[in-house]
Amino acid sequence: MSRIAYFGPQGTFTEQAARTLTVDDELLPVETIPAALAAVRKGEADAACVPVENSVEGPVTATLDGLAEQELLVAVAEALLPVHFTVLARTDGEPIRTVASHPHALAQVRQWLEVNLPDARPVAASSTAAAAVGVRQGEFDAAVTAPVAAEHYPLRVLATEVADVRDARTRFLLLKPPGELPEPTGADRTSIVAAAANRTGTLAELLTELATRGINLTRLDARPTKGNFGEYLFFMDFEGHISEPRIGDALAALRRRCSGLRFLGSHPRADQVAATIQPGAANDDFTGAVDWVAAVRRGELA
Amino acid sequence: MSRIAYFGPQGTFTEQAARTLTVDDELLPVETIPAALAAVRKGEADAACVPVENSVEGPVTATLDGLAEQELLVAVAEALLPVHFTVLARTDGEPIRTVASHPHALAQVRQWLEVNLPDARPVAASSTAAAAVGVRQGEFDAAVTAPVAAEHYPLRVLATEVADVRDARTRFLLLKPPGELPEPTGADRTSIVAAAANRTGTLAELLTELATRGINLTRLDARPTKGNFGEYLFFMDFEGHISEPRIGDALAALRRRCSGLRFLGSHPRADQVAATIQPGAANDDFTGAVDWVAAVRRGELA
Repeated sequence: MSRIAYFGPQGTFTEQAARTLTVDDELLPVETIPAALAAVRKGEADAACVPVENSVEGPVTATLDGLAEQELLVAVAEALLPVHFTVLARTDGEPIRTVASHPHALAQVRQWLEVNLPDARPVAASSTAAAAVGVRQGEFDAAVTAPVAAEHYPLRVLATEVADVRDARTRFLLLKPPGELPEPTGADRTSIVAAAANRTGTLAELLTELATRGINLTRLDARPTKGNFGEYLFFMDFEGHISEPRIGDALAALRRRCSGLRFLGSHPRADQVAATIQPGAANDDFTGAVDWVAAVRRGELA
Repeated sequence: MSRIAYFGPQGTFTEQAARTLTVDDELLPVETIPAALAAVRKGEADAACVPVENSVEGPVTATLDGLAEQELLVAVAEALLPVHFTVLARTDGEPIRTVASHPHALAQVRQWLEVNLPDARPVAASSTAAAAVGVRQGEFDAAVTAPVAAEHYPLRVLATEVADVRDARTRFLLLKPPGELPEPTGADRTSIVAAAANRTGTLAELLTELATRGINLTRLDARPTKGNFGEYLFFMDFEGHISEPRIGDALAALRRRCSGLRFLGSHPRADQVAATIQPGAANDDFTGAVDWVAAVRRGELA
């Protein structure tokens, strides 16, 4: 049994993601994303489960920054959760005058609240789960929470699957110290973070190394380094697995070009979308081409 | 005198930015970023002041999304503010047991609070200014706020220039309906948002149009469209002004390649950094080259 540190407290979306990524493991809620990563780096946990991007809000900057610094951690699995909320209320049936949640969650259900709880005042809490705790303690009348919170906090379920934006999703990673890589499946994702010189055309050159090999980029986030606008770390996700010849060839090219390059993992995609392979850019094409050069060098072919 | 809608309430960083961008104008605090943009679109304000990116937290997604949708607004000026906070406390000198602010602000002063107010419990508020109002009303003992808040709320200044990360900055835009453009200064920034087909190599091709013209990209944000991971809008800032031949040439190329392209403004950079011009990529090179083609077409040169 492994110990999985996750961005808690109990009853958050990340707990829900951690449950889909693990079986019999012990789940340890920790207070922040940096603390979850630190628990793995210090050996207090075997893996960490943290959010990495949301389809409405964008990248989770604490996770990206945490992966670029300190000891390397690699993603070995991912989970994709729909973002819809459960509204939990006090059990005494009194009118609902305040509704609490993390400000991000309140922003994502604003229209729903206007229609369904027009008299309730929104109140900011430090997390969706903290809002549920506040309702238990009589501090607020209702809380907007992750669905899993209903299992931890015995409150009245006022509504489920609440979301202003349909189909919003959050992607979570399971992170471990470097070791054995997951097997390639044909529907994989590889993640890197690249530090590159701040000069005209750098990013175009890096992306062209992927494009000319027919490798499809699935995400790009530019994060300022050391708080300086104009100097960036580039977080890239693309289709494929480092064990594939085509991906290895691209990573070697990026390694040459970047002042720093960190491999952040190759793992199966949660949506199981198979990689796009362009003509002349399949793994056999890459190995065949290398074999041809070797044969020419041996004088076997003209 | 113009009316400038800004992301309020009174006493936020955005009010501070709006003050640096305007002189005698009337400042109208509005509750959200979308509401500030809507005020201009409806003609209730002449311009809007909103944050666009923070060097620690990254892009302000509400601003990016708000600029990609509905009637066009263009940036005519920008302000760059250092992000440091003022801590305001109740005036009766009682011990400080709670300290309130927006969760983002609390995250940016966590280390300071641990050292200087170790016994105070952090409490989430809907904005830094709302936290100050809460202290006035006796709800909290202290608030972490923008420096300008001290002018609006008569509270005790406990500390100024508080920030865990030194040199963090936020960039703000002044947005107007399309009209006359600011004059080019040689140290300008042009902003666009491009919608492009979701196929391998698209982004590499767009960035190469800038790189081959020697145009330096200063920011790139990929935002998912309609909540779908893998389909993105690309927000790009680069050096230069649309009135320059080199920038016009690049924009025409991007216009051809993109399924949608929105010009979001050309305006002077707040940091006054002059554009990098590469050999063969100055405005004279571009106009000279077009003149040469015209001369050849007229049969004047072989």
